[in-house]
Amino acid sequence: MSDIDRKRAARLMNEAGIDALVLFQPEAFRYAVGAPAGVATMWGRAGAAVALVPAQTDAPLAAIVSDHAASALRANAPEVDIRTHRIWIDMLDVTGAETVQEINEAYRRTGTGGPRPETFDRSVVFALLGDLLQERGLTNARLAADLEFMPAADFKALKESLPQAEWLDGSTVLRRLRAVKTADEIERLRRASQAAEAGLTAMAQAIRPGVSLPELSAAWKAGAQIAASNGGFSLSGHWDYISVGADLANMTAVVAPGDLIKADVGTLVDGYSSDGARTYTFGRPSGLAIDVFKALETAFHAGLAQIRPGNPFSSVHAAMLQSMRKDGFAEYYRGHFGHAVGGSVGIEEWPFFSAGNMEIIEPNMVVALEAPFYGQGLGALMIEDQFLVTDSGAECMNRLPRGLVDVSNL
Amino acid sequence: MSDIDRKRAARLMNEAGIDALVLFQPEAFRYAVGAPAGVATMWGRAGAAVALVPAQTDAPLAAIVSDHAASALRANAPEVDIRTHRIWIDMLDVTGAETVQEINEAYRRTGTGGPRPETFDRSVVFALLGDLLQERGLTNARLAADLEFMPAADFKALKESLPQAEWLDGSTVLRRLRAVKTADEIERLRRASQAAEAGLTAMAQAIRPGVSLPELSAAWKAGAQIAASNGGFSLSGHWDYISVGADLANMTAVVAPGDLIKADVGTLVDGYSSDGARTYTFGRPSGLAIDVFKALETAFHAGLAQIRPGNPFSSVHAAMLQSMRKDGFAEYYRGHFGHAVGGSVGIEEWPFFSAGNMEIIEPNMVVALEAPFYGQGLGALMIEDQFLVTDSGAECMNRLPRGLVDVSNL
Repeated sequence: MSDIDRKRAARLMNEAGIDALVLFQPEAFRYAVGAPAGVATMWGRAGAAVALVPAQTDAPLAAIVSDHAASALRANAPEVDIRTHRIWIDMLDVTGAETVQEINEAYRRTGTGGPRPETFDRSVVFALLGDLLQERGLTNARLAADLEFMPAADFKALKESLPQAEWLDGSTVLRRLRAVKTADEIERLRRASQAAEAGLTAMAQAIRPGVSLPELSAAWKAGAQIAASNGGFSLSGHWDYISVGADLANMTAVVAPGDLIKADVGTLVDGYSSDGARTYTFGRPSGLAIDVFKALETAFHAGLAQIRPGNPFSSVHAAMLQSMRKDGFAEYYRGHFGHAVGGSVGIEEWPFFSAGNMEIIEPNMVVALEAPFYGQGLGALMIEDQFLVTDSGAECMNRLPRGLVDVSNL
Repeated sequence: MSDIDRKRAARLMNEAGIDALVLFQPEAFRYAVGAPAGVATMWGRAGAAVALVPAQTDAPLAAIVSDHAASALRANAPEVDIRTHRIWIDMLDVTGAETVQEINEAYRRTGTGGPRPETFDRSVVFALLGDLLQERGLTNARLAADLEFMPAADFKALKESLPQAEWLDGSTVLRRLRAVKTADEIERLRRASQAAEAGLTAMAQAIRPGVSLPELSAAWKAGAQIAASNGGFSLSGHWDYISVGADLANMTAVVAPGDLIKADVGTLVDGYSSDGARTYTFGRPSGLAIDVFKALETAFHAGLAQIRPGNPFSSVHAAMLQSMRKDGFAEYYRGHFGHAVGGSVGIEEWPFFSAGNMEIIEPNMVVALEAPFYGQGLGALMIEDQFLVTDSGAECMNRLPRGLVDVSNL
């Protein structure tokens, strides 16, 4: 099912003077129609899958996908108007066949046989898009593609193939649209966050002198997988940035007493990535580490107090930077103290809690707020939690205490 | 270290009338300079990292990277001329600091303090590129960017920022360059293939009635990881397309006697992905499965006989298709029967063994040859091996027998 709020999409498109979004990025396709764009998108090129989102809310969503990805799309998104193109993969239903002759008949019966392109045929897809636009009365329309994804070589071919349309950049409309989540998207992010946090609990239990960074990473992953499995969902991915001790570049570091252990981690559920971080020590950390962490905690709370509908994203950055300055950090500066989370490419989604981001915080945005300090020779320290913006403030999606935890006391 | 053969690069650029390659894709950057492009490339945008490869072989390679990724680049590629730009991440060396005041001093001493952009500043990077081009006498040159990657929105900004250059598409030169591997690249692909194959051996031992597809996937992964660890290298990634039984869409299928189990798998070493596949059964497969597999085996050997320097990639496709026709498959058709492997985006790298690909097979290309049959209601069958093209033919990088193995006999 599509994750698009068609009414909101219509409002954003009307404000931008756009008649339809034409989306080529696999992540945008999936967002628009609710099913994977398929294996033919593996090369990062445009044209293997296309989603059409008309501004007119009663015009159905449409998609052009490979014959290989079509059945999953039909099953997941029966409301979408689907066109297919042939890709390199030969696949057919041979149920009941007992001989090669019967396989040949199955090809003929299903129309599956015959030549296929080397990978996929971009010109065929653009021609199908032309037909679709014509049927929808959009041939001469103001069409907005995702030009922050679309390779320049493919955009050139698109304009040559469909010269009557006025091609605009729909990237801003798309990211504004994605920034406010549906209930389904919120649930994916909640689950992803829950699995990642269970992983952190498992990792914390594994911390002791002599344990290596790769072993902590494995413990984190295993804990997250088990939590997902117990929760009745599966993970579509995971990532972790773990540091152990004073040398931030040592990816095989081994825990020694007093070390800082920072874990910035996330799991993905249906392509939606969580983002969160905790810092641990084994034994008493240095006085400086305690001072830095205290400043990060204070800054985190100052930022959190600004996360409520109506505030600009920049207000969070201003509050956190001011808090760090007040605690004596005269030079420390972060480009952003967090960001939205979701199913876009990249873990961090726009908008960002940066100095210049005037986007307004709205209910049903899901954001990650982060207060990190990376000190080579000291270690990394970080607090990061995920929040659902509510009508009046922010609901935390995490449960672990935010403090600097000495696991030798556990 | 760079994986580029500068002499071959010069020849290809001269043939294409290009003065320099300007590469923006993270995978192309890594290939050109031998170090990761860094975390600022996570959004798939151009401008977070740029590599310059002049056609003139005595002009050094150059790179523009984030201050965050610069130290890894300096360590891995001391021969590269490096420029840096500031990204959102605040990181500094605080070695010896015991107070917040001493941290402030470390910022000032290292020039690390002060404002940072929300993520990265594309206009700063393009200006640094302009300076670099000027120093190299390339301001008015014929510059070729990787336009099969570069987002149209970023290409527009690049042309506006550096209007004096003539911007061409360097994608064909880049993929031709990548198609012939260095000794280091071949070693990565050999290791990746070796780990993947060890995973298949582990998976085969786990096949028995009642075992599920996710369990087989886990057994494969564990076997591959152990082999890498025993071999003294680590995996930068892994992927698997496993099918169990007649329903190819059932991702949680459980092995039953007579089932076909197809595993198309790969691991990545330093970003280079292997590709290989085997088919197993538990107990005797159907007569039709045996017939199909026999035809695939014959086609595989017909294709393999064509893999030698001087032949076009298309000759392999022609031989395999002809073999299938001869064995009675009147309608079966694959867009390609294999492809190069390497460190590009996507598992399958150009050139492809397709009907129309006239690229000539050359020594030190590494290719995967594949003969698959996907029959819904029957199961998937596949043979795929990885080969190094030698001066006279092809050296197989795999050791497992290619037959349809009944694991109940093991």
